[in-house]
Amino acid sequence: MYPNWILQRAYLTPNRIGLTFEGESWSFEQLKQISVTRAYQLTSLGIEEGSRVAIMGQNHPRLIFMILACMHLKCEMVLLNRKLSKEELDYQIKDAKVSVVIVDEEDEHLLPQKVNKLPFLKVEESHETPIEISEQWTLDQTTSIMYTSGTTGYPKGVRQTVGNHKESAVSSVLNIGLSEEDVWLCAVPIFHISGFSILIRSLLYGNEVKLYRKFDTEGTISDISTGRITHISVVAVMLERILHGLEEKGLEASPKFKLALAGGGPIPKNYLLRAQKVKLSVSQTYGMTETSSQTATLSNEDALRKLGSSGKPLFFNQIKIADTNEPFVEGEILIRGPHVTPGYIGQFEHKNSTVDGWLHTGDIGYIDDEGYLYVVDRRTDLIISGGENIYPAEIEGVLMAHPAVKEAGVCGIEDTTWGQVPIAFIVLNESVRKEELLDYCIGHLAKYKVPKEVYFVEQLPRNGSNKLMRRKLKELIH
Amino acid sequence: MYPNWILQRAYLTPNRIGLTFEGESWSFEQLKQISVTRAYQLTSLGIEEGSRVAIMGQNHPRLIFMILACMHLKCEMVLLNRKLSKEELDYQIKDAKVSVVIVDEEDEHLLPQKVNKLPFLKVEESHETPIEISEQWTLDQTTSIMYTSGTTGYPKGVRQTVGNHKESAVSSVLNIGLSEEDVWLCAVPIFHISGFSILIRSLLYGNEVKLYRKFDTEGTISDISTGRITHISVVAVMLERILHGLEEKGLEASPKFKLALAGGGPIPKNYLLRAQKVKLSVSQTYGMTETSSQTATLSNEDALRKLGSSGKPLFFNQIKIADTNEPFVEGEILIRGPHVTPGYIGQFEHKNSTVDGWLHTGDIGYIDDEGYLYVVDRRTDLIISGGENIYPAEIEGVLMAHPAVKEAGVCGIEDTTWGQVPIAFIVLNESVRKEELLDYCIGHLAKYKVPKEVYFVEQLPRNGSNKLMRRKLKELIH
Repeated sequence: MYPNWILQRAYLTPNRIGLTFEGESWSFEQLKQISVTRAYQLTSLGIEEGSRVAIMGQNHPRLIFMILACMHLKCEMVLLNRKLSKEELDYQIKDAKVSVVIVDEEDEHLLPQKVNKLPFLKVEESHETPIEISEQWTLDQTTSIMYTSGTTGYPKGVRQTVGNHKESAVSSVLNIGLSEEDVWLCAVPIFHISGFSILIRSLLYGNEVKLYRKFDTEGTISDISTGRITHISVVAVMLERILHGLEEKGLEASPKFKLALAGGGPIPKNYLLRAQKVKLSVSQTYGMTETSSQTATLSNEDALRKLGSSGKPLFFNQIKIADTNEPFVEGEILIRGPHVTPGYIGQFEHKNSTVDGWLHTGDIGYIDDEGYLYVVDRRTDLIISGGENIYPAEIEGVLMAHPAVKEAGVCGIEDTTWGQVPIAFIVLNESVRKEELLDYCIGHLAKYKVPKEVYFVEQLPRNGSNKLMRRKLKELIH
Repeated sequence: MYPNWILQRAYLTPNRIGLTFEGESWSFEQLKQISVTRAYQLTSLGIEEGSRVAIMGQNHPRLIFMILACMHLKCEMVLLNRKLSKEELDYQIKDAKVSVVIVDEEDEHLLPQKVNKLPFLKVEESHETPIEISEQWTLDQTTSIMYTSGTTGYPKGVRQTVGNHKESAVSSVLNIGLSEEDVWLCAVPIFHISGFSILIRSLLYGNEVKLYRKFDTEGTISDISTGRITHISVVAVMLERILHGLEEKGLEASPKFKLALAGGGPIPKNYLLRAQKVKLSVSQTYGMTETSSQTATLSNEDALRKLGSSGKPLFFNQIKIADTNEPFVEGEILIRGPHVTPGYIGQFEHKNSTVDGWLHTGDIGYIDDEGYLYVVDRRTDLIISGGENIYPAEIEGVLMAHPAVKEAGVCGIEDTTWGQVPIAFIVLNESVRKEELLDYCIGHLAKYKVPKEVYFVEQLPRNGSNKLMRRKLKELIH
C-alpha cells in the first residue's frame, strides 16, 4: 500500500509551491483542494472510480487539475496527443474503449465529431458530489495510458502504472540529485511522457513545476540565465534555440541552473560544445513511453568524452544488447526494470510487452567497453541500401555539423537499383550550395550513405514533443 | 528483478569514493573487487549462497568488506551487537540457528566459547573459489537481521529485506535531498540500523561514507566545521558533545554541512537552540529496527516550532494512532509502508509483524492538528541510553533469577550524558549487598544495561491486576 501522492504531498509540504503558470502559482495544498473539487465534479457527471477516460488539452493548469482529479478517482487516463489527425485520434479512442473524452474547449474541434466529449468548462461549472477519495494506492494500478507506434506501425496503448511512475522518479533522483529549491520547467507536452513525468516527479519530490503553454525561447532563456529554474526537459531543436538565444544575447546559464535533460534522439556535438561555452549543463537521456521516461542518462561530465552515447542505466534499471555480451556489438536494445510497462490495452492487450522481464525496444544499439549505451537508430527508420544498413541519425549528425545547416532530416526512398537510398531535408542557417553539402558528406561518410538528393525546406515535420518524424519527410517533396 | 547494488554502483560510478577510513579511501570499483574476492573466499570456506550467518565486528572497512561479500552471496546476515553479554549473544546465535559467526579477531573473546567462529583473518587469507555472483536481486530477499526486544522482553530477530532497505533509502532522499558531493559520517555502529542504513544509502546514492571506528568528538567537529562531511547520524549524547566542542572552540558548522540526523529519542530544546547558534542543522527522526531506520523526520525549519515532535512520515510511509483519527488523542503508534519488516526469524518466526499492513509499535503518541507526530512514551517503558534500546523486562528477568530477589522493577531516569539510564527497585527474599546484585547483572547483561542504582523497597507499585506500573517506580525514590 502506498499513500495517494497528491494527498500525501499536500500533507507533508502544504505551503510549498507546486505549480506556476504565467505568473500565477499554486501550493500543493491548493493543488489538492482544486483537484479534489474536480474529482467531486467529475463524479457528479458520472465518471466512476477506476473507469477509463481520455483527456485532451494544451499545457495549462486546467489540464493539470483535471489529471490530478482523475488520479484521485484512480481512472485509467488515456492522454491524447493533440497534434494527431482526427483519424488517428479516432483509432485511439475506439481502441481504448473510453467512455468519454475530457477535453479543453479550445481542443474540441480537433476531435472526431461522434466522440462523447466532456468539456473542461462543463466539469468546472458542475455540482460537486463528495465521495471518499482513496487514500491508498497500489503499485499495479494504471495511472496513464499513452499510445506509441513502436515497431509495429499500429499504435499500441501503453499502460503506465503507479509503480512505473514511482520507480522512474526515484531512479531519476538517485542519478541527478534533489534539492528543495529545484524548479523544473515544463515546455514539453504533458500528454507525452516527457511532460507527464515532470508532473509526477513534482508530486514525489515536492518541487515546483513552471509550466509553459508551449516552448518559448525568450522566456526559457530568461529563466535559465536568471536561475528562475533549475531543470528543463528538452529535445535537440529546443536546445539549439536556447543556445542560439543565449549566444545572441551574450548570456550564460545561471550557476543555480542545474540541468537540461535532453531526450528524443542524440544531440549533435557542436550543440554540446556551445552548451559548454554558455555553461549550460546537458544530460542526454534514452527513454520511451514503455519505460515511463528515462532508462539511461549520460551525465554532463561524460557528454563530450562519450559523444553520441545515451549513458548508463539509472540505478534500478538494466540494459543489455540481444544475443551478445560483447562490447561494441550492435543488436536490439533490451530493457528491464520496475519502470517497464506491464503491457498494453485494446487490441494489443494480450501481446506480451516483455520476455523474461526484458522489454524488446526494437531500437538498435551497442554498449561500449565502459558500459555506455549507444543508440544507433530507432529500428523503424532503418534504411537498407544494397544490403547495407543505413541509420538516418548518422547522416543527420554529419549534416548538422556543417555551419550552414540548422536542422537536418534523412529518410529512405525506393530505388530500383539499391532497394532504398537516403535523401536529406535541410533547414538552413545561411545560404549554401547543395554540392558543397554533398562534398562535405563524402568527406565524412561511406559513399553509400551519402544522400542521393538534398531538399532545402522551411521546417521539418515534428511531433508534439518536437521529435523529428522521419516518415513524414517524403511528403515535403513536390 | 533488481540489479545487485554493489555491482550496479561499481558499474555506474566506478571511480567515485565509496568509503574513507582513517585517511584511506576506496572507490566503488575497489569495494566491488574486494567484496567479490571475500565472497570467493567465504565460498571456499563453505559459506553457501542464501545461508544464514552471523557477523560481528567493530566499525572498520574489514567489517564493511565482509558485509558486502555476504550481500553478494545473498546470505541472511545476523548483525551481532558487540556490546551484548555472552549470554545474550548465545541466545541470538541459537535462535537464529546460524552455521557460523564471521568475527573480527579482536571481538572473538566477546563470543561464547562453544560458538563456531570464522575469524576475518582466516577469510582474508583463504583461497578463493570463484563462483558466479548473482546479478539479480529480489525485493523479498532478506539482507540483514537485527535483534530487538520489542514488547515481549524476549529479543526477536527482525528481517530487513532488499525491499525494506531500498524503500527506506529512497524515502529518505525524497525528504532530505541528494547531491553528488554528499559525504555521510558514520560514527554509529554498523550493527545497528542507524549505521547499516548509512552503508545502504551509500550504495544507492553513490556517496562517500566516512567511517569512524567509534565516535570521536575532535574529529567530528573538524569534519563538520571544515565541510569535510555533509551529513551525520547522531544520538542526543553525540549531538551534545559536538555542540560543546564547537562552542568551546568558537567554531560553526561549515555552509557545506547539511544535516545532523538525530535518532534514538527526543532532543532537548536547549540542544536545538545551541545548534542554531553554531549553524548546525538538525533533523529529529523516529525510526526503529522493524522499519529499517527512519519512518518520520522533523525538518530543521520545524525543529523549534514543533519542539518534541518527530515530524511527518517520509513520502511512501504512513503513520496513524490506533483507534482514533482525532488530533492530540494519545494511542499506540501504527506504521505502514514498504520499509516495514515482513516478519521475524527463530522462535518468533510465526508471529505476525503487522495487522492489515500496520506495524503495531507499542510506542504511545499522538498526531497534532497539522499532522506532526509526537512520541509520548516508548513501548513498554523502553529506556533509550546513548542510542541503545534497553527493555526493563529483560533486566528484571535477570535480577529475579538471583536467589535473594523476590520482585524487581526497572525504569529509566534522566541522565545528562546518556539521555536516560536504568535504575532498579528490589523487594528482597533475603539480605544481599547491592554490589553483589550489580556484579550478578554484569555477568549476564551488556554493560549499558546494568542498573546505575539499586533501591531496596517494601513493595512495588502494581495495578488492580497486579501488573507492575513502571511509571510509578520513580516515586519510590525519596
